[in-house]
Amino acid sequence: MRLGTCYYPEHWPQDMWADDARRMVEAGLSRVRIGEFAWSRIEPEPARFEWEWLDQAIEVLHAAGLGIILGTPTATPPKWLCDKMPDMFAVDADGKVRGFGSRRHYCFSHLGYREEAARITRALAGRYGEHPAIIMWQTDNEYGCHDTVHSFSDSARDAFRLWLADRYGTVEALNEAWGNVFWSMEYRSFEEIDLPNLTVTEANPSHWLAFRRFSSDQVVSFDKAQADILRELSPGRDVMHNAMGFYPDFDHHDLGKQLDVVMWDSYPLGFLEMYAFSEADRHDYVRQGHPDIAAFHHDLYRGCGKNGRWGVIEQQPGPVNWARNNPAPLPGMVRLWTLEAMAHGAELVSYFRWRQAPFAQEQMHAGLLRPDGEAAPGLKEAQQVAPEVERLGDIGAPVKDAALVFSYPSEWVTATQPQGEGLSALWAAFYTYTALRKQGLNVDIVAPSASLDGYAMAVLPCAPIVSGELAERLKAFRGQIIIGPRSGSKTDDLTIPPELAPGKLQWVFDGKVTRSESLRAGIEHQGEGWAGRRWLDHLETDADAELVAGDGTVACWKQGNVRYCATWPEGDVIDVIVARAAEDAGLETVKMPEGLRIRKSGEFAFVFNYRNEARAVPDALCGEPMIGERILPAAGLAVFARG
Amino acid sequence: MRLGTCYYPEHWPQDMWADDARRMVEAGLSRVRIGEFAWSRIEPEPARFEWEWLDQAIEVLHAAGLGIILGTPTATPPKWLCDKMPDMFAVDADGKVRGFGSRRHYCFSHLGYREEAARITRALAGRYGEHPAIIMWQTDNEYGCHDTVHSFSDSARDAFRLWLADRYGTVEALNEAWGNVFWSMEYRSFEEIDLPNLTVTEANPSHWLAFRRFSSDQVVSFDKAQADILRELSPGRDVMHNAMGFYPDFDHHDLGKQLDVVMWDSYPLGFLEMYAFSEADRHDYVRQGHPDIAAFHHDLYRGCGKNGRWGVIEQQPGPVNWARNNPAPLPGMVRLWTLEAMAHGAELVSYFRWRQAPFAQEQMHAGLLRPDGEAAPGLKEAQQVAPEVERLGDIGAPVKDAALVFSYPSEWVTATQPQGEGLSALWAAFYTYTALRKQGLNVDIVAPSASLDGYAMAVLPCAPIVSGELAERLKAFRGQIIIGPRSGSKTDDLTIPPELAPGKLQWVFDGKVTRSESLRAGIEHQGEGWAGRRWLDHLETDADAELVAGDGTVACWKQGNVRYCATWPEGDVIDVIVARAAEDAGLETVKMPEGLRIRKSGEFAFVFNYRNEARAVPDALCGEPMIGERILPAAGLAVFARG
Amino acid sequence: MRLGTCYYPEHWPQDMWADDARRMVEAGLSRVRIGEFAWSRIEPEPARFEWEWLDQAIEVLHAAGLGIILGTPTATPPKWLCDKMPDMFAVDADGKVRGFGSRRHYCFSHLGYREEAARITRALAGRYGEHPAIIMWQTDNEYGCHDTVHSFSDSARDAFRLWLADRYGTVEALNEAWGNVFWSMEYRSFEEIDLPNLTVTEANPSHWLAFRRFSSDQVVSFDKAQADILRELSPGRDVMHNAMGFYPDFDHHDLGKQLDVVMWDSYPLGFLEMYAFSEADRHDYVRQGHPDIAAFHHDLYRGCGKNGRWGVIEQQPGPVNWARNNPAPLPGMVRLWTLEAMAHGAELVSYFRWRQAPFAQEQMHAGLLRPDGEAAPGLKEAQQVAPEVERLGDIGAPVKDAALVFSYPSEWVTATQPQGEGLSALWAAFYTYTALRKQGLNVDIVAPSASLDGYAMAVLPCAPIVSGELAERLKAFRGQIIIGPRSGSKTDDLTIPPELAPGKLQWVFDGKVTRSESLRAGIEHQGEGWAGRRWLDHLETDADAELVAGDGTVACWKQGNVRYCATWPEGDVIDVIVARAAEDAGLETVKMPEGLRIRKSGEFAFVFNYRNEARAVPDALCGEPMIGERILPAAGLAVFARG
Ligand SMILES: [Zn+2]
Ligand SMILES: [Zn+2]
Ligand SMILES: [Zn+2]
Repeated sequence: MRLGTCYYPEHWPQDMWADDARRMVEAGLSRVRIGEFAWSRIEPEPARFEWEWLDQAIEVLHAAGLGIILGTPTATPPKWLCDKMPDMFAVDADGKVRGFGSRRHYCFSHLGYREEAARITRALAGRYGEHPAIIMWQTDNEYGCHDTVHSFSDSARDAFRLWLADRYGTVEALNEAWGNVFWSMEYRSFEEIDLPNLTVTEANPSHWLAFRRFSSDQVVSFDKAQADILRELSPGRDVMHNAMGFYPDFDHHDLGKQLDVVMWDSYPLGFLEMYAFSEADRHDYVRQGHPDIAAFHHDLYRGCGKNGRWGVIEQQPGPVNWARNNPAPLPGMVRLWTLEAMAHGAELVSYFRWRQAPFAQEQMHAGLLRPDGEAAPGLKEAQQVAPEVERLGDIGAPVKDAALVFSYPSEWVTATQPQGEGLSALWAAFYTYTALRKQGLNVDIVAPSASLDGYAMAVLPCAPIVSGELAERLKAFRGQIIIGPRSGSKTDDLTIPPELAPGKLQWVFDGKVTRSESLRAGIEHQGEGWAGRRWLDHLETDADAELVAGDGTVACWKQGNVRYCATWPEGDVIDVIVARAAEDAGLETVKMPEGLRIRKSGEFAFVFNYRNEARAVPDALCGEPMIGERILPAAGLAVFARG
Repeated sequence: MRLGTCYYPEHWPQDMWADDARRMVEAGLSRVRIGEFAWSRIEPEPARFEWEWLDQAIEVLHAAGLGIILGTPTATPPKWLCDKMPDMFAVDADGKVRGFGSRRHYCFSHLGYREEAARITRALAGRYGEHPAIIMWQTDNEYGCHDTVHSFSDSARDAFRLWLADRYGTVEALNEAWGNVFWSMEYRSFEEIDLPNLTVTEANPSHWLAFRRFSSDQVVSFDKAQADILRELSPGRDVMHNAMGFYPDFDHHDLGKQLDVVMWDSYPLGFLEMYAFSEADRHDYVRQGHPDIAAFHHDLYRGCGKNGRWGVIEQQPGPVNWARNNPAPLPGMVRLWTLEAMAHGAELVSYFRWRQAPFAQEQMHAGLLRPDGEAAPGLKEAQQVAPEVERLGDIGAPVKDAALVFSYPSEWVTATQPQGEGLSALWAAFYTYTALRKQGLNVDIVAPSASLDGYAMAVLPCAPIVSGELAERLKAFRGQIIIGPRSGSKTDDLTIPPELAPGKLQWVFDGKVTRSESLRAGIEHQGEGWAGRRWLDHLETDADAELVAGDGTVACWKQGNVRYCATWPEGDVIDVIVARAAEDAGLETVKMPEGLRIRKSGEFAFVFNYRNEARAVPDALCGEPMIGERILPAAGLAVFARG
Repeated sequence: MRLGTCYYPEHWPQDMWADDARRMVEAGLSRVRIGEFAWSRIEPEPARFEWEWLDQAIEVLHAAGLGIILGTPTATPPKWLCDKMPDMFAVDADGKVRGFGSRRHYCFSHLGYREEAARITRALAGRYGEHPAIIMWQTDNEYGCHDTVHSFSDSARDAFRLWLADRYGTVEALNEAWGNVFWSMEYRSFEEIDLPNLTVTEANPSHWLAFRRFSSDQVVSFDKAQADILRELSPGRDVMHNAMGFYPDFDHHDLGKQLDVVMWDSYPLGFLEMYAFSEADRHDYVRQGHPDIAAFHHDLYRGCGKNGRWGVIEQQPGPVNWARNNPAPLPGMVRLWTLEAMAHGAELVSYFRWRQAPFAQEQMHAGLLRPDGEAAPGLKEAQQVAPEVERLGDIGAPVKDAALVFSYPSEWVTATQPQGEGLSALWAAFYTYTALRKQGLNVDIVAPSASLDGYAMAVLPCAPIVSGELAERLKAFRGQIIIGPRSGSKTDDLTIPPELAPGKLQWVFDGKVTRSESLRAGIEHQGEGWAGRRWLDHLETDADAELVAGDGTVACWKQGNVRYCATWPEGDVIDVIVARAAEDAGLETVKMPEGLRIRKSGEFAFVFNYRNEARAVPDALCGEPMIGERILPAAGLAVFARG
């Protein structure tokens, strides 16, 4: 694994560049990402390019021995370009134009902007595509950030109509597929179809799902145009994009297919503050982040790429600026995050950013250096971890325990039709992932199309849309299977299948969901050591009722190697189900103490302590670690050699 | 009382219709409502009508012996119609157009749409008006659903100006009535007057009240146009509209005057979740609904019709889809709700809907049948209750205990000018209704113009606007009177009357409110077994201070047969006041255990158990019940013959 | 000090005026403010003036012996004027036009409205400027009320561009100052610059700060146009404006420079309910207001005027209408508030309003009279306090203990870039003020440019932008200094200074903030009797760590006469720091019991009891009071002569 950093030469005087490059290398970094917001410096006026500074920056970094990841600057078109075509902006669901003044101010469906994006990509790749310093390209930056996947512009509407015509062939087929007879929503032509926003009450969920699919496809095709140019003009270099955390608005499996490497931007403290964590977790992990935030995304994005190549292109090095509250990481966390990425198989961890900028939107975002150029705490940890990374070398292939199947359209279904407060397929996946990790298991988060070979368990936490092909493979799967609520409950167009839920999964599990209900927080169906909460699927089935609450509610049914979790897969109930399934699967589990996590590769077992206090390594891991001690300090870790 | 269901033949293959009709009749249903959203199937292109399917559906249902309630489809104009006149949409208070894609996407004030609505009504009534199967018409569907009464369109503005000219005659009179001298808001002509939205801070409350009155009138006149056509072309049939729960945006007393029957749509679990109930109630009654939700609306809408004719045209049969959380009713609740409607005098209970649709917005809304055509739990309860309804037959006239006076403009006053957080005349009525019912009393919720003859008590929970005529009748009333806070505090134009509150009610109660204050949650003036909360009226009066808190605050004044409740009529304090007044009125009260309710008609006393556990019938009801046992199971009920 | 009231003769029949005036004088009032919303009565049609009624009103009030404060009516342009230039309205940050129908419906940048405002001011001043009854003018009313300082109109955009050109000279200088290279936000001309709203994510904070500065300047120049006319046409009269509470959107120090007197509108109960007070404070002080609300603003606005002349032009006399909840003041509070204003040096306390209006937006706002003309409780307290005010006469100069430095741009920085939830420089000032007052100290809240001579302490609770000039004066200051977090952390353009925080304050305190973090509620670094919360500045310094938490976190550093508070200055921690600094400063402190406050002038010491129960005066004040007793009743007060 390599270490790197994100650098903005255009933010600093040219005479600082060489020293910066030297200090990077001295710190153990060998990769540097540049360029991804620099359009106004590259092309300050229409068609007038200023290459000299970038030529020079690349030379200086190259000369220092750094491999360069060059970004296309399409996330930040300059003002003059926007003024040329003011309809290029995205429009929000309320109809407000999302204008210039920050970033990501373009609509993915605007044909004019697509031409401009291709033009600047071609210009960059033409100039630097074969430069020996350039080892990788990043397309754009964080597609979807600031809720930019869904645009309600006229461009989006026009493109959506074409997309619908392509998908459904005839408007009659669309009316039928969506059930538009309901509420007289039938269309006579594709030209009559608008975007699903600004309706009186909610639009047809089929309409929304189609719009979500379309919007995802627009991101993927926008990206593909750049990837194609880069491959043409920069042969042999990798193409990468930087994904975000807890961000499901486009299908990363689709995107990953056209990339060489999938990377992501890891900000565990910001995510803890901004996403749906409990107050207790936000308190206990305030300077560490919940112990599954980073790992979940490592295991998710590893499954999104073509060959499992992935990395962290932006790693939080200190406090950020964009969360409601922005604490500093506990001393040791930057090192811990780095080695945890390694344990999950990253090929790169790159710290964002090299030096804190004293100006503009991110001036309160820490870097490895302070704004005055002195070392910030993050740099010291990077320097500490670099030789450890080197020493560990090749960690071997990941151990395969459980495959957790997640699909983006699943989340689109629950986002469109939650049916109960806060219910989300993505979060069902996260909670189930936590339950698996609390048993000390390795998890691969895989696409529905991915092979299940070699796993002892397959888990579908909440998969409303399931293909026949997946159902077939599950049927053939000899390990333990867990099927979560709502799975198989919807067709591709978000209608109820004729056979009812779990739809095609009835090939795997002989039962039928005859009624579902969602429950407000505080309503609990208590079993022994667990409770059914938030959701109940009622089943007609000959399966065994494995978990039955005191009031007779069944939370889990079992039939052969299949368990059906009939309540929301969260907290104690999914812990119990996962533990039973793991035992049946013959997996060696390790009950992890609160806040500890383990990750096993071919060569090593890594243990990470996310608590703000010392913790002992569980006895199941015997012997003395090669890195660290058996008593892990707060934010500490240990690495054991595996037999 | 009859049972029925809501059916959408256009959603199902024609070859299923006959079997559906047969199963309805077998289940004990004799009424079916159809047609109310079918415009796009009736008129798929401008002026091209397709009647065959509807002819056939009516024949099939009729042949099975079902009486048909036919709806006009004006809540869902098709896309082609909207495209013809895109200014027909309502506009929300923020100025956003509320477009096509769901339902109720029209502005009540748009003249073009009014013509279209008359045209389709005339077409339907022309074809089926004298068909022997048609026994009743429903106009449109749920006026006001999704907050559609108040439209801020240009059409609404123009109509509002005419309405104002009609009401006030001259703009000088309007300026005077509204006090427009305040903040230089004076107008020189009606053409200068805009709608009250989008002002810098709140508009004149008189302006808002006028707009609320106008908006209500627009609903009523929109409805009247349809009712007139239906009466002309379908002689002898009843005209009905389906009202909603906790919905005060138009005056249902005005609407009821032009209808033959007022019906409503009863979804107790959804209402519990979505309206202002306490967390404790939401927990305890999660699968039953608060015990007064259904009854309150039964007693309210019974008072809205011309002759007390009313019914439940949509009865929740299982989980719904539209609340934040959507639990299933406790087994027994569908039967309980049905017999409770009967106890309150309904002429029909119709379950919504026959079969759950597998597509579109309401796919997660249960029906009597599952989407696969099998019986859902609701059907079994309908089948159980049908013979019970038959056996009870004519239950006799309701016993008259208390008249609770409620007027829609009262709620418009408190909605416009709450003066304290969450204070609402509608909810004051609901809380007071609960207090009356906890004493085992029958309640009629009556319009201010309704006769008070035969009642032992008259209660005005919060009636800011009171006519001299009502004050006269109250003065002559010999039973016990309770006047709640803010009553009589406003003129018809929402100004303070010269004599101060309680205004004309000073004819009834000799006292003057000299100061009012609202109190945040948690501020309590403790008496013995009660507390003054949320509101305090301070009075100058010679009446007796009947309830005095430890700190000297007077919560209730008494003078002859009149009590003035000077704090918000909610919880323990209104319990105490109601109990005292009932005793003074010589009414036989029954202290109901938590969650039990009683309803008395000429022949029977019904007892309902809303708790999720068994409860004994109070001793005050002696003997053995003719239906049920003296120990009521959860969601159980008993019917006693009355001497 | 004088007493007065706010009167609207145009709201009442002319034959009531003389009696009203007589009753004012009888109650001890000698000042009356009129006219500030009367434009539609003065000029009912374009250019047709009706002066007769106002001539008459002025005569009647003058004849009764009242001095008149006349307001310009520019906060309420009439409808006809708005219709002439519909682009005169302000636009909110969402792009919605803020139209006619309430008040303050104009954009400060609209040139046409500026002309109209000058025209009506000239008309009024021309007619009454030299009238002997007129002793003072009020410009407009409550600039900024209802969030009206920030307008996003085209007029504002155009004016902003000119303002930027004036401030920065060249667009290159602006790009450099704002760091627009970040995210390619560089402009090629001032014409390319838009307002900072409606961006995809937040705009550049430098852009926002510039817009906030500009918006404040627009208010000040709008006001100056009126002040200039009034000075020209009404020589010898004072010009005043009425400021609000907790309102920082324009720079009151800038405004105050061009006024003769700064007055403010004091509504302690409404402010308690609407601003960021704890639930406990809202409960305990529900009918009194937090004990520092009024005093804080007295001490703030005294520091805004040219010569310390200030007053309360609107004093809450009973319940108001505009807060979420609107309780009545505890008996005694109107008197207490009046004498407290006196204790802080007011020249006027004027009650708002004389008689409660029975109509329009403020009909639920109490006056000294009820709507029926009878005395409301407030009048009785005004009558009680008038002779007390008279008896105390000249109270002497305020004692100088501590200077609390507050600048409006500081608040603009924290509002633009809070970095942690709810962090605000204004509230840091308020909390620190409370800590000072709990030690019994007198506080002057001063502008950064104000002299620090004569003070024993100087406190900067949170001053991100600090001038070199202030740093020089602090360096020379021999008293105790407290510097709060984030102080000196920003340049004038909201970037990080090269030397890092505390920037120029490093001349005063030798230390450097190397990292800052914000903490969510509930995260505490416990010391002995205090905790660090919400914010932590980490410092490199040779100063002594004076307050160190159990976990090693330093909350306060000390170096000579300077303390650096490294955590948020709120609650126990700032109490401890202030107490230590006061001791080091040799100030005589009095630990005030909860809810008691003291204020010392040359002649007297005033003690106020804000609790809802009796409290003894602290022993530190010896002897018997000349007003009141040593045991203060709820809402009571005592005045002691000072040696
Ligand atoms: Zn989105
Ligand atoms: Zn409404
Ligand atoms: Zn503002």
